[in-house]
Amino acid sequence: MKIYLAGPEVFLPDAIEIGNRKAAICRRYGLTGLCPLDNVLDPAAAGASIAIFKGNEAMMDAADAIIANLTPFRGPGADPGTVYELGYMAGRQKLCLGYSNDPSTYGERTRLFTAVTESGGRLVDAEGLKVEDFGLSDNLMMIHALDRHGCALVTPRRKPADIWHDLTAFERCVQFAARRP
Amino acid sequence: MKIYLAGPEVFLPDAIEIGNRKAAICRRYGLTGLCPLDNVLDPAAAGASIAIFKGNEAMMDAADAIIANLTPFRGPGADPGTVYELGYMAGRQKLCLGYSNDPSTYGERTRLFTAVTESGGRLVDAEGLKVEDFGLSDNLMMIHALDRHGCALVTPRRKPADIWHDLTAFERCVQFAARRP
Repeated sequence: MKIYLAGPEVFLPDAIEIGNRKAAICRRYGLTGLCPLDNVLDPAAAGASIAIFKGNEAMMDAADAIIANLTPFRGPGADPGTVYELGYMAGRQKLCLGYSNDPSTYGERTRLFTAVTESGGRLVDAEGLKVEDFGLSDNLMMIHALDRHGCALVTPRRKPADIWHDLTAFERCVQFAARRP
Repeated sequence: MKIYLAGPEVFLPDAIEIGNRKAAICRRYGLTGLCPLDNVLDPAAAGASIAIFKGNEAMMDAADAIIANLTPFRGPGADPGTVYELGYMAGRQKLCLGYSNDPSTYGERTRLFTAVTESGGRLVDAEGLKVEDFGLSDNLMMIHALDRHGCALVTPRRKPADIWHDLTAFERCVQFAARRP
């Protein structure tokens, strides 16, 4: 089984090393991890962003599954680039797995980024937009997409010391994929 | 043509009215707009989030196209719930259109949310994560998904006075859909 390894760790300075560690974990379970091309192509080259997009899309098309790192990124929710890829793979009817290294709920995290108040029996942010409050880790579309197209979001009981490098929850997703018939 | 109308305006107090306005614009062009169910079902009912997910997924499956509102939401990037739906529709090979009422680039906006510095020739945020800097409106996966599966992201020249209620850019997406053979 080929698994597309999506996540905002492509933006870390040691992105390639993390990708290699993830691919090595996949190999231990007899699976093949495919890393996005974001750090392989020269970002300064003409048309680099299109080349990365086309390469990543082709890699998703070739993969049987995705493991999406939905750890919150620059705000209360997951990285939209990763979320796009999760949606794409769900649309392609591939196996969808995901994890977040932050076990808090979306409602709890939103309070760290904006003033949340109650208005007419619902929670709203500083712009007056409702805060989704189902006790889920993130927007219901991603969380239930995992329930429907793979298995429930994997989260640790406690946030690990190094949220961007801890691969315990990732490995649980790999174990789930390896057990699939 | 049936168009799924995705966007974080489902979180506004007047979400249903905005949805009705969008559907009326679609009708003027001979198209049918389908609004997500987030505000139709009672959020306090048991299993409400699952029911909303299943309803929205079925509506996307029934639609021929999506118009995604990618206006930045609670951070520098688009609403992950909307982005998930864009990815899902791209994966289903449907027509993918999108707009943002904020014409700034992702790099410009990120500076409003985190300290951006240069490190080793690349822009990084306060956590040390690289800031994508291709001069695009958002993460390259969504922006080029629109190029590939529909048409380029529609943005206004200037941010409208009411970023959540101005439907000018939305109507341009509808016009594009109506012109499709």
